[in-house]
Amino acid sequence: MNDPGPITVTDSSGSVVASERLVAGRNGRDTPVYQVRSWSVTAPEEFAYEVQLADGLLDPENPALLDAAGGSGGPARRFVVIDDRVADHYGDRVRDYLTRNQVQHRILRLRVSEETKTMQAVLRLVSALDDFGISRRREPIIAIGGGVLLDIAGLAASLYRRGTPHVRVPTTLVGLIDAGIGVKTGVNHGVHKNRLGTYFAPAAVLLDRSFLATLDRRHLSNGLAEILKIALVTDARLFDLLEAHGQLLIDERFQGTTETGRRAADEVLDRAIAGMLHELAPNLKEQQLDRLVDFGHSISPSIEMVALPELLHGEAVAIDMALFTMLAARRGSVGSEESGRVLRLMRALDLPVDHPAVDWPLLVEAMESTIRHRDGLQRLPLPAGIGAAAFANDVTLGELARALEDLREMERAHA
Amino acid sequence: MNDPGPITVTDSSGSVVASERLVAGRNGRDTPVYQVRSWSVTAPEEFAYEVQLADGLLDPENPALLDAAGGSGGPARRFVVIDDRVADHYGDRVRDYLTRNQVQHRILRLRVSEETKTMQAVLRLVSALDDFGISRRREPIIAIGGGVLLDIAGLAASLYRRGTPHVRVPTTLVGLIDAGIGVKTGVNHGVHKNRLGTYFAPAAVLLDRSFLATLDRRHLSNGLAEILKIALVTDARLFDLLEAHGQLLIDERFQGTTETGRRAADEVLDRAIAGMLHELAPNLKEQQLDRLVDFGHSISPSIEMVALPELLHGEAVAIDMALFTMLAARRGSVGSEESGRVLRLMRALDLPVDHPAVDWPLLVEAMESTIRHRDGLQRLPLPAGIGAAAFANDVTLGELARALEDLREMERAHA
Ligand SMILES: NC(=O)c1ccc[n+]([C@@H]2O[C@H](COP(=O)([O-])OP(=O)(O)OC[C@H]3O[C@@H](n4cnc5c(N)ncnc54)[C@H](O)[C@@H]3O)[C@@H](O)[C@H]2O)c1
Ligand SMILES: NC(=O)c1ccc[n+]([C@@H]2O[C@H](COP(=O)([O-])OP(=O)(O)OC[C@H]3O[C@@H](n4cnc5c(N)ncnc54)[C@H](O)[C@@H]3O)[C@@H](O)[C@H]2O)c1
Repeated sequence: MNDPGPITVTDSSGSVVASERLVAGRNGRDTPVYQVRSWSVTAPEEFAYEVQLADGLLDPENPALLDAAGGSGGPARRFVVIDDRVADHYGDRVRDYLTRNQVQHRILRLRVSEETKTMQAVLRLVSALDDFGISRRREPIIAIGGGVLLDIAGLAASLYRRGTPHVRVPTTLVGLIDAGIGVKTGVNHGVHKNRLGTYFAPAAVLLDRSFLATLDRRHLSNGLAEILKIALVTDARLFDLLEAHGQLLIDERFQGTTETGRRAADEVLDRAIAGMLHELAPNLKEQQLDRLVDFGHSISPSIEMVALPELLHGEAVAIDMALFTMLAARRGSVGSEESGRVLRLMRALDLPVDHPAVDWPLLVEAMESTIRHRDGLQRLPLPAGIGAAAFANDVTLGELARALEDLREMERAHA
Repeated sequence: MNDPGPITVTDSSGSVVASERLVAGRNGRDTPVYQVRSWSVTAPEEFAYEVQLADGLLDPENPALLDAAGGSGGPARRFVVIDDRVADHYGDRVRDYLTRNQVQHRILRLRVSEETKTMQAVLRLVSALDDFGISRRREPIIAIGGGVLLDIAGLAASLYRRGTPHVRVPTTLVGLIDAGIGVKTGVNHGVHKNRLGTYFAPAAVLLDRSFLATLDRRHLSNGLAEILKIALVTDARLFDLLEAHGQLLIDERFQGTTETGRRAADEVLDRAIAGMLHELAPNLKEQQLDRLVDFGHSISPSIEMVALPELLHGEAVAIDMALFTMLAARRGSVGSEESGRVLRLMRALDLPVDHPAVDWPLLVEAMESTIRHRDGLQRLPLPAGIGAAAFANDVTLGELARALEDLREMERAHA
C-alpha cells in the first residue's frame, strides 16, 4: 500500500489524522492479524443561544421578535407556527404585529396535543415551510406555544435543510421555565414519549409572561411543580418565595396585579430560569447521567405510564418528589419539619402528593427502568435539607416502601 | 426587579451568563425603551469519529465490526439494518458473522431507493428498533448499504432517543468515498432531495472494498465521478492514477485481480478518502459556503431535476464538471491540453459529458438557484490547472453559454 504519511489538517474547525495499527483476530490466535489504516476526524462545535425576558413581545413597537436571529435590513418575511389554542387568544395580535411591521408572513395554526405530538405533525409543518419558502439564513421560523408545540417545531427546524434557525416563544409556565429554554426537541413514537428528537439550539428564546394570563390554573400548578423541583434541590430562597407567594402567583397568573405579586413573579421566574439553565448548560446533551434536574423524574415516568392523561407531567413529578422527600427524611438528610413544609407547599400549589396507581409493583418496575436508563446506577437525587441535594446509589426497595407508608400516614393525618 | 447579579457557571462543558441591556422601540422613537434581561448559554461540543479501512470485515475472526463503538464484554446484542439488495449478496455472511461470534441479533432488510428515501422508511426502522430494544450505550446500530441506506439509517440513529450510536458500512463506491464517511444524514421530502436531515457523527465507519465486487459498472463509474472531482480540484496525482488505471479499476471492480490493479485500487481509495475528509473536516456542518467539494454541484442539481432518474447523481456531476472545465479553459486557468485530458478521462470512466436537457433556460435557472443557495454569491469552484482550484464570483451567463458551445464542439470533434 502506498503511504502518503499522516495527513493532518488543522484549522479553526476540524482536523483529520491518519494512522495505522495492528489488531489481533477475535479469538486471540496470533493469525490472522489485521492491519488497520484509519482516519480520525474531530471537529469542535458549539451550542450558543440567548434566553431573553421580553415583556410586551407582541407590542408592534417592540423589536425583540423581529430582531431575534433575523438581522434587520431587506424586506422581512417570517413563518410563524402557533399552537391553535394559543392562536385563539393571541393570533390577531401576532398578525397585527407582523402587518404593522410590514413583514410578509404565513401563520400556521397547529392543533397539538400529546396524542398528535408525532412525526406526522413535524411533516405537516415541513410541507408548509416548503410552500412558503424561507431563506435559511435570514428568516428564522417563529414558534409560539406550550412545550408540545415547541418540541414539534424545534424538531422540524432542526431537520429542515439539516437545521434552520427558529425562535422559541413559550406560552405556558412549563415552557417559560423548562421546555422553552433548553435544546431538546422531540416527538412521541408509538407508546414512547419523546422517542425521536434532537439536541438543537434555538436562535433565540423570548420569554413573555403575559401569555400566562390565559393559561388555566391547573397548567400553572403543573409548571410550579418544576419550579418547586429546582427550588428544593438548588435554591432555598426560591422555596421560601413559593411558600410565601405561590398561591398568590396562581391567583394572579403571574401577571403582577398587586405589587407583592409582581415582585414575587419577577423573582420566582428569574430564579427558576437561571436555576434551570444553570443545571442544563453544563450538560446540554445529557451525557452526564448524574443530573439534579432528574429529581422528581425517577418514578414519575412509570406513574405517567399508568396515569396519563389523567395526571399532568408536573403532577406525576410532584408525587415522585413527595415520595423521595419522605425517603430522605427517613435517612435524616431532610428534617421532619422540612418534609412537612415540602408537602404543605405542594398542597398549597394544588399539586397532588400521592396517587392510587403508586403501589408496590409500580415502584419495583419504576426503579428497574430508571436504573436501566441511567446506565446501571440509581443516581437518585435526594434533597439534603431544602435547597440542596446529593446523589444516592444505594436506595433499597424496603426504604421506598417505608417512604410510601410514611407519606400515606402524613396524608391521613392531614385529611 | 431583584438582581441576583450575573450568574456564571463554567465547567468543562457549558456556561450561562446573565446580562441586561436597553433596547429602543422599532421606530427609533425614544419611548418606549425596552429593558432586556437575558441569559447567554454556550456549550462546546465535538464531532469525533473514526473512518477505518477494514478489509475482510465479514470474516468471523475480524474484530472490527463488533469492536466498533461497542466495547467488548458482556453478552453482545446488535441490530443490523441492511439494504435489501446488499442482503441478497451478503446477508448470509452477516448472519454467520454474528452467530459465530455469539451475538444476539436482529437483521432488518430494507428495500430502499431514491423514491422510498423518506421519513416513512426512518419510522419503519425506528419501530423495528423499538421491537428489538437496544442499550444506547453499548449496542450500536450497524448500517450496511449504499448512500441511500446509510442516509436513512443515519437519520434514524440521530433521532432515536436523541442520538444512538451507529456504525456505517458502505457498500457502494459513492458510499466508500463520500456518503459513508461524512456526518450528513437525510431523507427526501416531496420533490426535494435531502430536505430533512441532521449532522450526526457515526460511532465508526468501516470501509471494505470487497463489497464492490457485486456492484454494477455504472455505479462504479458514478462513484468515480466524485473521485475525479476530488482529483481535479485538489490532487493531481490522483488524476494521473485515474488516467492510468481508471478503466482497469472498473474492470476489476477495485478487487485487485492484478498486481497493478491492486496497487491502483489501494492508492486511489486512500487518496480519495483522505482528500474528501480533508475537505469535509474543517466544515462538517457546511457553515462555510466556499466549498471545493461543491465543484460539479453548481448546475447538476438542476440537471437532476429534469433528468433523474435517467441520470445518476455522479453522471450529472460529470456534466457539470465538463462544462465548468471548459469555462475555466476559456478563462485560461486550465490549458486546452488539460481540458482535453479531463474530457477524455470522463469518457474513459464511462461518464457522460453532456446531456440534451442542458440548455439556455436550464443554465439561467441553475445559476439563480445556486446563488440563492450560496447566500447571494456564486462561489463557483473553478479548476486552476489539474489538481487545484479557486473560487469565482463573476461568471457571466455569456461565458456559460460559450463554455457549452465549446463543450459541444469538442464532442462533435470527438464523435
Ligand atoms: N424540550 C424540553 O426540554 C421539554 C422540557 C419539559 C417538557 N417538555 C415537553 O413539553 C410538553 C408539555 O408542555 P406544556 O406543559 O407546555 O403543555 P402543552 O404544550 O400541551 O400546553 C398545555 C395546554 O395549554 C394550552 N396553552 C398553551 N399556552 C396557552 C396560553 N398562553 N393560554 C391558554 N392556553 C394555552 C395548550 O394548547 C395546551 O392545551 C410535553 O410534551 C413535554 O414532553 C419538553
Ligand atoms: N450523506 C452524504 O454525505 C451523502 C453524500 C453523497 C451522496 N449521498 C446520498 O447517497 C445516495 C446515493 O448513494 P449510492 O450512490 O450509494 O446509491 P444507492 O444507495 O442507491 O446504491 C446504488 C444501488 O446499488 C445497490 N447496491 C449497494 N451496494 C451494493 C453492492 N455491494 N452490490 C450490489 N449492489 C449494491 C443498491 O441497492 C442500489 O440499487 C443519494 O441518496 C445521495 O443523496 C449522501
